[in-house]
Amino acid sequence: MKLVRFGAAGREKPGILDANGVVRDLTGLVSDIGGDVLSPAGLSRLREIQPASLPAAPAGSRLGACVARAGHFVAVGLNYADHAEETGMAIPTEPVLFSKAPNCIVGPNDDIIQPKGSTKLDWEVELGIVIGTRARYVELADAPAHIAGYCLANDVSERAFQIERGGQWIKGKSCETFGPLGPWLVTPDEIADVGDLSMWCNVNGERRQRGSTRTMIFKPDFLVSYISQFMVLDVGDVIITGTPPGVGLGMKPPVFLKPGDVVSLGIDGLGEQRQKVVPFAG
Amino acid sequence: MKLVRFGAAGREKPGILDANGVVRDLTGLVSDIGGDVLSPAGLSRLREIQPASLPAAPAGSRLGACVARAGHFVAVGLNYADHAEETGMAIPTEPVLFSKAPNCIVGPNDDIIQPKGSTKLDWEVELGIVIGTRARYVELADAPAHIAGYCLANDVSERAFQIERGGQWIKGKSCETFGPLGPWLVTPDEIADVGDLSMWCNVNGERRQRGSTRTMIFKPDFLVSYISQFMVLDVGDVIITGTPPGVGLGMKPPVFLKPGDVVSLGIDGLGEQRQKVVPFAG
Repeated sequence: MKLVRFGAAGREKPGILDANGVVRDLTGLVSDIGGDVLSPAGLSRLREIQPASLPAAPAGSRLGACVARAGHFVAVGLNYADHAEETGMAIPTEPVLFSKAPNCIVGPNDDIIQPKGSTKLDWEVELGIVIGTRARYVELADAPAHIAGYCLANDVSERAFQIERGGQWIKGKSCETFGPLGPWLVTPDEIADVGDLSMWCNVNGERRQRGSTRTMIFKPDFLVSYISQFMVLDVGDVIITGTPPGVGLGMKPPVFLKPGDVVSLGIDGLGEQRQKVVPFAG
Repeated sequence: MKLVRFGAAGREKPGILDANGVVRDLTGLVSDIGGDVLSPAGLSRLREIQPASLPAAPAGSRLGACVARAGHFVAVGLNYADHAEETGMAIPTEPVLFSKAPNCIVGPNDDIIQPKGSTKLDWEVELGIVIGTRARYVELADAPAHIAGYCLANDVSERAFQIERGGQWIKGKSCETFGPLGPWLVTPDEIADVGDLSMWCNVNGERRQRGSTRTMIFKPDFLVSYISQFMVLDVGDVIITGTPPGVGLGMKPPVFLKPGDVVSLGIDGLGEQRQKVVPFAG
């Protein structure tokens, strides 16, 4: 299944893609794409529905983030060996974790707001994991049962805030609009091999990132198991899993986003995003 | 006002302390201590209530965290010059930010669960700030209007997870039960000077931490303004503001918590907490 949320920001409705890619309205069947709807039982109930029997969403509807507000938004750093290399940082021996403010999550095609004082705004195409069942000290073999699905994410970053302002990365990872998620929450049965998905990111139509989840150091099942040793993962929590090479910070000389730029990105089977960079406007 | 949440974990009811310190039940008047209840208008409405006119909570009720589930749980590191010194880290020139998983927030007297594999479990008495109005690029002078109140917090930490497991601090700050908050959310009008509050922490009755918010490097108003330059703070978000000297990591030799230990802590006017350390029990 490909689950979506559509409609105005803050008032999204739940939806599902039919076989023709048309968004169908799940209003009345589920309250939102989140909570128990993401559990194995909730997803099973959704599977019994014939999407084509549901009303279509209004044409041209905005898409929201593909999961209702996450309780926690965890991110994995330096999880592609070649990206770690381009940043000049050591390849980690265990996953590097940080977090993004959950309220930075936005729709896949919403504008990216350049924060006040930002000089080093950057892009990162990433694979996202959405938790479907509470995960607490989960064994590796049991991890798949805790994953509701996968989605595309842009781990928008402000490198000066992240690296030059003291301490931890969160400062450069949490600004308003820094977490585009979606278009779809794709259930695992629709993905032949999550460890073999091509991914890419363009800026103004120029290819900046190209990679594959084949070169991820720590794979999704491992990450869910690993993170659950340090914190409880709740239903609806989102983990984004690192980015392949080609970020602006890694270019020689570095290149950063400015208002008017357009970022587009995609992962095989998980759809595409497109964001315009806009100045902060109060 | 001193606002509380009482009752079984996950089913807390909202309450308010009367002039005699008795918890009175706000059920039916507000849905919880969170959301719009924390706004200036919400708090004004609560001020019109005579607490003594409300039913008392059952004697011996458990207290929950003093604020309903936070959307974001932000923490400030090394914010007392003498604590920075005891950890051997440099005194920061601007606030060091990190986060704790919001789902680690628990009641003020709930047990602390020693995580699996933990060897360096530590305590940190801290002043917490609860956001009452959305904060986005807030000027210093406007910061007080965004603060619903203050509370006592224990920033429970696992130092090996925090420091020795690669990358960022979040790994050692987010385990289940690592965020005792309360007993009370105290509105600012009840605190003469938030920059002059004594604070202490005992382990098994021995004084380990003693300090005062006088030695905070960055004060609450500044922190709200500062953090709001990097992320939007929403109503109900919690910021904990750093700890004075005396943590286990700073002792020579270091001393860490083990099952059976009892941690008690307090801040002038914000009440006291008491936690027993228990082993992880599946």
